Amino acid sequence: MLTAQPLPDDVRMTPGELGGVPVTFIDLDGVTPRGTIFHIHGGGFAVGSARGSVGLASSLARRTGMRAVSVDYRLAPEHPYPAALNDVTAAYRALLDEADPAEVIVSGESAGGNLAVELLVAGKASALRMPAAAVVFSPMTDLTASGDSFTTKADADPNITLDAIRTRAGDYLSGSGTSAADPLVSPIFADLTGLPPLLIQVGSHEVLLADATRLAAKAADDDVPVILDVTPGVPHVFQAFAAILDEGDAALDRAAGFVDAHLRVGAAV
Amino acid sequence: MLTAQPLPDDVRMTPGELGGVPVTFIDLDGVTPRGTIFHIHGGGFAVGSARGSVGLASSLARRTGMRAVSVDYRLAPEHPYPAALNDVTAAYRALLDEADPAEVIVSGESAGGNLAVELLVAGKASALRMPAAAVVFSPMTDLTASGDSFTTKADADPNITLDAIRTRAGDYLSGSGTSAADPLVSPIFADLTGLPPLLIQVGSHEVLLADATRLAAKAADDDVPVILDVTPGVPHVFQAFAAILDEGDAALDRAAGFVDAHLRVGAAV
Repeated sequence: MLTAQPLPDDVRMTPGELGGVPVTFIDLDGVTPRGTIFHIHGGGFAVGSARGSVGLASSLARRTGMRAVSVDYRLAPEHPYPAALNDVTAAYRALLDEADPAEVIVSGESAGGNLAVELLVAGKASALRMPAAAVVFSPMTDLTASGDSFTTKADADPNITLDAIRTRAGDYLSGSGTSAADPLVSPIFADLTGLPPLLIQVGSHEVLLADATRLAAKAADDDVPVILDVTPGVPHVFQAFAAILDEGDAALDRAAGFVDAHLRVGAAV
Repeated sequence: MLTAQPLPDDVRMTPGELGGVPVTFIDLDGVTPRGTIFHIHGGGFAVGSARGSVGLASSLARRTGMRAVSVDYRLAPEHPYPAALNDVTAAYRALLDEADPAEVIVSGESAGGNLAVELLVAGKASALRMPAAAVVFSPMTDLTASGDSFTTKADADPNITLDAIRTRAGDYLSGSGTSAADPLVSPIFADLTGLPPLLIQVGSHEVLLADATRLAAKAADDDVPVILDVTPGVPHVFQAFAAILDEGDAALDRAAGFVDAHLRVGAAV
């Protein structure tokens, strides 16, 4: 997602790398961070960048007294699945070389929400250490695009169409030999058992609404501590507009409360 | 639900009536209440009582600085639908003769969660003034009992069976000429548009899990501000055991936070 507003003056961006993957470290002047938000940007697996996600990532970092790191994973169609997931996993593993997972939150928006959940799903097979919690904003969770909100919310959502989702999913999977229903690309079909506490935020005016509600239902069925938090009348990743949209501000405050409840290293500064 | 533990010494119960319906008023010593929790007990429409729900209702009242009133609505099979809904509606309307709806929270557990939502759904047709918010614990939302958790959670839930739900639903509807799929007895089939902010809490070890997740999905589709809050590994209406169950205590704290966010009359005392 592109940043819609200029960044506040106290946000410092530092390019770097984790596990060989380019990242942007995001720090706030005057904050001694009590942990790290590992953020995965959106853009349908095809566009977007770590820098473009700094607005949202820094908004959550500010409310939680943390720093953030946003990952520049490889994009489709040049780099189809599993390139992005491999990059995200490599960067997360490298972060854990220096950070206690109890002080790490994984977050993601849209396609980045997909990668955030799949990072944890894929990691179960290799005993990846789970973060304290995960927060996903308007996640893409079903690359078969079978959600009924593609119909019920088509008129309400000017941003995304079923055709666009199918195109993005096709590019992401192109040449990979992986089905859109594979649990490693569509988390609603995955075994989510063992995932850490999960917060899912979504607007009700999204064709991806059912991606969020079905992820919540699957997580609940798989005994994951999960909160689904629906804000009516707002669009895809509305939290990116928190500076001008009261609902986005309020949703990020609730996300910060969720992080506070699960980060085991003291109160927000 | 029967009260599992003795009540704390500071809980005062006063029998009374609202709109001709017997109720129990619940006050906490030393608390000047900033509003009223209108609570609807559980028990499959067939058992339970206002007094039996005082433990749960007072736990939420304590955390929010409110008083509570719990309704002794008529029970099935002697009094099938719509007796219970009519009683709850009459009592709520009478409460609003003396209370600002912005200072009222509607809550309900299990079958009482059904009645809490249906109170608001039915009230839309008669311009009922909506409460500030609604909180439902493990609600029964589908009297057709079609949720997949009747299968997936059967082994995990020793408390409730599909047969028991069918019996209770049959008794509630007996002689009423109302179908189990009627929107006024199964809120997942209702138009929920216009409902106030709704918090749904449920345990993952419940055959009624899918009743909760589907209510959340329907509310989201209908543009209701809704939060679904799933606690893993705990049974039906686990909040009633908050005094001995940490997960219940934590869930009620989150419910109180939700109430705080929507009650427009100052902070908790």
